[in-house]
Amino acid sequence: MELNVYLAGQIHDNWREEFRKAASEWELPLQFFGPMENHDRSDNIGEEILGEQPDNIFKDEAASAFNNLRTQILLQKADVVIALFGEKYKQWNTAMDAATAIALNKPLIIVRPKELHHPVKELANKANVVVETKEQALKALSYVFEAN
Amino acid sequence: MELNVYLAGQIHDNWREEFRKAASEWELPLQFFGPMENHDRSDNIGEEILGEQPDNIFKDEAASAFNNLRTQILLQKADVVIALFGEKYKQWNTAMDAATAIALNKPLIIVRPKELHHPVKELANKANVVVETKEQALKALSYVFEAN
Amino acid sequence: MELNVYLAGQIHDNWREEFRKAASEWELPLQFFGPMENHDRSDNIGEEILGEQPDNIFKDEAASAFNNLRTQILLQKADVVIALFGEKYKQWNTAMDAATAIALNKPLIIVRPKELHHPVKELANKANVVVETKEQALKALSYVFEAN
Amino acid sequence: MELNVYLAGQIHDNWREEFRKAASEWELPLQFFGPMENHDRSDNIGEEILGEQPDNIFKDEAASAFNNLRTQILLQKADVVIALFGEKYKQWNTAMDAATAIALNKPLIIVRPKELHHPVKELANKANVVVETKEQALKALSYVFEAN
Amino acid sequence: MELNVYLAGQIHDNWREEFRKAASEWELPLQFFGPMENHDRSDNIGEEILGEQPDNIFKDEAASAFNNLRTQILLQKADVVIALFGEKYKQWNTAMDAATAIALNKPLIIVRPKELHHPVKELANKANVVVETKEQALKALSYVFEAN
Amino acid sequence: MELNVYLAGQIHDNWREEFRKAASEWELPLQFFGPMENHDRSDNIGEEILGEQPDNIFKDEAASAFNNLRTQILLQKADVVIALFGEKYKQWNTAMDAATAIALNKPLIIVRPKELHHPVKELANKANVVVETKEQALKALSYVFEAN
Amino acid sequence: MELNVYLAGQIHDNWREEFRKAASEWELPLQFFGPMENHDRSDNIGEEILGEQPDNIFKDEAASAFNNLRTQILLQKADVVIALFGEKYKQWNTAMDAATAIALNKPLIIVRPKELHHPVKELANKANVVVETKEQALKALSYVFEAN
Amino acid sequence: MELNVYLAGQIHDNWREEFRKAASEWELPLQFFGPMENHDRSDNIGEEILGEQPDNIFKDEAASAFNNLRTQILLQKADVVIALFGEKYKQWNTAMDAATAIALNKPLIIVRPKELHHPVKELANKANVVVETKEQALKALSYVFEAN
Repeated sequence: MELNVYLAGQIHDNWREEFRKAASEWELPLQFFGPMENHDRSDNIGEEILGEQPDNIFKDEAASAFNNLRTQILLQKADVVIALFGEKYKQWNTAMDAATAIALNKPLIIVRPKELHHPVKELANKANVVVETKEQALKALSYVFEAN
Repeated sequence: MELNVYLAGQIHDNWREEFRKAASEWELPLQFFGPMENHDRSDNIGEEILGEQPDNIFKDEAASAFNNLRTQILLQKADVVIALFGEKYKQWNTAMDAATAIALNKPLIIVRPKELHHPVKELANKANVVVETKEQALKALSYVFEAN
Repeated sequence: MELNVYLAGQIHDNWREEFRKAASEWELPLQFFGPMENHDRSDNIGEEILGEQPDNIFKDEAASAFNNLRTQILLQKADVVIALFGEKYKQWNTAMDAATAIALNKPLIIVRPKELHHPVKELANKANVVVETKEQALKALSYVFEAN
Repeated sequence: MELNVYLAGQIHDNWREEFRKAASEWELPLQFFGPMENHDRSDNIGEEILGEQPDNIFKDEAASAFNNLRTQILLQKADVVIALFGEKYKQWNTAMDAATAIALNKPLIIVRPKELHHPVKELANKANVVVETKEQALKALSYVFEAN
Repeated sequence: MELNVYLAGQIHDNWREEFRKAASEWELPLQFFGPMENHDRSDNIGEEILGEQPDNIFKDEAASAFNNLRTQILLQKADVVIALFGEKYKQWNTAMDAATAIALNKPLIIVRPKELHHPVKELANKANVVVETKEQALKALSYVFEAN
Repeated sequence: MELNVYLAGQIHDNWREEFRKAASEWELPLQFFGPMENHDRSDNIGEEILGEQPDNIFKDEAASAFNNLRTQILLQKADVVIALFGEKYKQWNTAMDAATAIALNKPLIIVRPKELHHPVKELANKANVVVETKEQALKALSYVFEAN
Repeated sequence: MELNVYLAGQIHDNWREEFRKAASEWELPLQFFGPMENHDRSDNIGEEILGEQPDNIFKDEAASAFNNLRTQILLQKADVVIALFGEKYKQWNTAMDAATAIALNKPLIIVRPKELHHPVKELANKANVVVETKEQALKALSYVFEAN
Repeated sequence: MELNVYLAGQIHDNWREEFRKAASEWELPLQFFGPMENHDRSDNIGEEILGEQPDNIFKDEAASAFNNLRTQILLQKADVVIALFGEKYKQWNTAMDAATAIALNKPLIIVRPKELHHPVKELANKANVVVETKEQALKALSYVFEAN
């Protein structure tokens, strides 16, 4: 059995790489998916494909259409979703992907620093598990495969 | 025909009152629902019902359980959801309710100031309509009832 | 028992009025819903609410958002959908609403002139019934209420 | 990961071949499905299997039954749907397949010439992305597989 | 609380009348729905609305379209389905309505004479309850309303 | 707005009466449903309607069919489910109704004495809220109606 | 692409073998599933596993439980269902499986002799295609794989 | 065809091993999944990953989150569920998993000693089959693969 894991969260640094590396070291049969991690690419994909847009709002609307296409396809392939919240950025995408996972009956792991407990509390209450570190999230997935 | 409208968004000021008043003035057959708008009450409801919790995280977990109970019941009664984003607060609840509405096939209107177009862009792309003012949101609902 | 009927189709003439009148004369407990029938209003609703758009394509995109909001709300209230096809116009909206009704498990009646049998054939095959006149469509609904 | 793509649209010329060729050149892991592309075969399949029908309407009804069987099976296998609209033909099938994809929560890419923006506007508003050329549609799918 | 009950079964005699009378005598808040009980009307409704058909098979196809429209609308309104099987007729309609009820998660009561236990056994195993008389079926519904 | 509440749990004493009385005193717009509370009646309903059964297992099978018919009808009408666990009895019915509510996306309140925290822990983790007293459960529902 | 086909229908002769042989000769990538075809085995499987039952009705109830377990598992694996009706037997199982396929959105092919058009008419109207011979049913499936 | 089987039930002894051994001896293409069978590990997994909790109730809440994550992932992969009830322990987990399987339309086999027929009767009535021994459960699955 192999599990597909969608990694929802910001795309300003390469935190997803840590998951890929640790899962490989721990020899967990996990396949990771996620949004485009090149932030500029993600912001420009609308104009890259459709050409210049009238202003920044339309540029964003165009980009988000392609980003949502990608997310919808990959989220539907996922067996479980990990949503990481951090101190910076609005992260409404992350909250959106997490809530979508819950509504689609996809198991959800939230990773957030303790300090963020208050603003994320309603999402946290609906998630399967809430942890503070990436390693804890991976332990949660590792537990699914363990025999005894 | 009467429509039930769930008003998702922050609970730090009484913006929902504007909707109630305007809808009443315009004589629109709308019934509004939403979260507990007394912010302290919303934060303390867990301890109010269950008693003191070990620390603030557990206090939050307890409160969010009752808040989510309320939201789930009322969101399921809703024919349409309005999610308002503003400059202040994390508003992950708002993003969660908006994404849940989309996943449950409930029509969604997002109200956000122009300045927030970038962080809300993926949610905006999935919403039915995105507007900047409460009055525009109400016009959108008014349009549903108009004959010609 | 009263039935909600969504009337999908072009909005260039007042064909829906015939349904309303006949149903009233036949004393059928039907409540009719449908798109905005004022064609200019329907085309301009985006700019009316959101202000001027960069060009006609963006104007159309804005208008369709409000039209789809209306259709989604009213289609979900419908017990049965009647889709009328005629000789003029592309009518892709009509095909969209008809296909949506089928996918949502809403019973569907298609009204089309005999001459259009070829292009509408796959939709027709999936509809509950296909008739040529509005009167036949209404007889189909009347039959639902008849005892013996 | 390989994606199944259903190509909805007219069957009067071999536009699907361009997708197949380009995808192969770009080495994208896409498997394409679609309707019977031999137009005469598609029109005659009812009589070919069931024998002569009373008139052309019944011939069409018979053919569409087999065409819909094919489409339903293949659409359910699809991870994403591309619907191409052109200047010619009614293309109600295309609108039907596109709307069905949306209702089944399958991501949808619409390809249409700029000139058709008005009649396709409501469908376009519900699609994930709308592009003007086949190459743009393929770029959208390519983006799903790109790392950074 | 009032319950809508769909009465599936043959339409060659007026067995549904017994249900209506007994429910009224027992003062049960039940509203009964069902197929057209005038057998000739049911067989001819296709030609009555659409005009003469090429042969008896097409006449049947036309009639069944209107009968299925009626059944789909009324079955979706039903809170519970009673399917009555008897010694005569093929009754594939009855089996179809019973299986549809099960698949739609509508509670199902089967009424059948003891002698028919063998051919109805798989359907019976999936029904909520299986009884031999109409009075027993009504007792089952009466039990739903009883306090203690 | 009125809410339908299904009260799942043992039927050996009249604990549901407390809910009915308190809700009436607090003037909450709640309508309560639940299983047959007369325990003997519940155990004998199969034989009462179908006649004597071969042995106690078949008697139980017959009774449970009528009890499940009742529960399925009433649970589908419920907006929220309260499941009460106590010290005595197996209460597998209670666990079944609670898990069914969760799977059907019905909000769930579990009432259990603190001492039972261990065996009920996985169900508790999936419930919306877990409380220790009936009064707390009612406060949770009262909170849904409170303005501020 | 390989398709799983469930063959619903009577188990008194080996008609399914014809499908298997022809599909193999035509080199169609079809995998066939169906009920236990050994009729005695099918009738006795309840007592074979559970031991002797009180009478023939309970023996049938026991057997049908195991037969339904098999059918439910295999029908859920099916991409398309073929239901064959013949002159003999009640065939309520066949109607049940056909109606279940429709409700589960599985494409359905009905095979029936022309003479049976009247009793099967409502089911036929809901099936994707209705044919008279097994060869026609196989041609329908072959058409799904044909290019042009 | 291979089937995934989820084995729901207590984790105090290694009864699942018997299934694995017998299935291997009988050469049945079954893949078994289930909860963590190391009871201490299952109770402690919350504190193992999240650190010490305030008291035993919070420790249980933490552990159950990880156990439910595992169960949800594995239950969604299952083609069929076997739920074993025994004389000891509350087994509300087992009832929860069994009811969840039913609500998710997963076929369910219940194994219980005859003595437990009364408390498990409502769940038993909803299961596909109820048997007394593990060997009988395996025979039921073996029957799914048998030809004739």
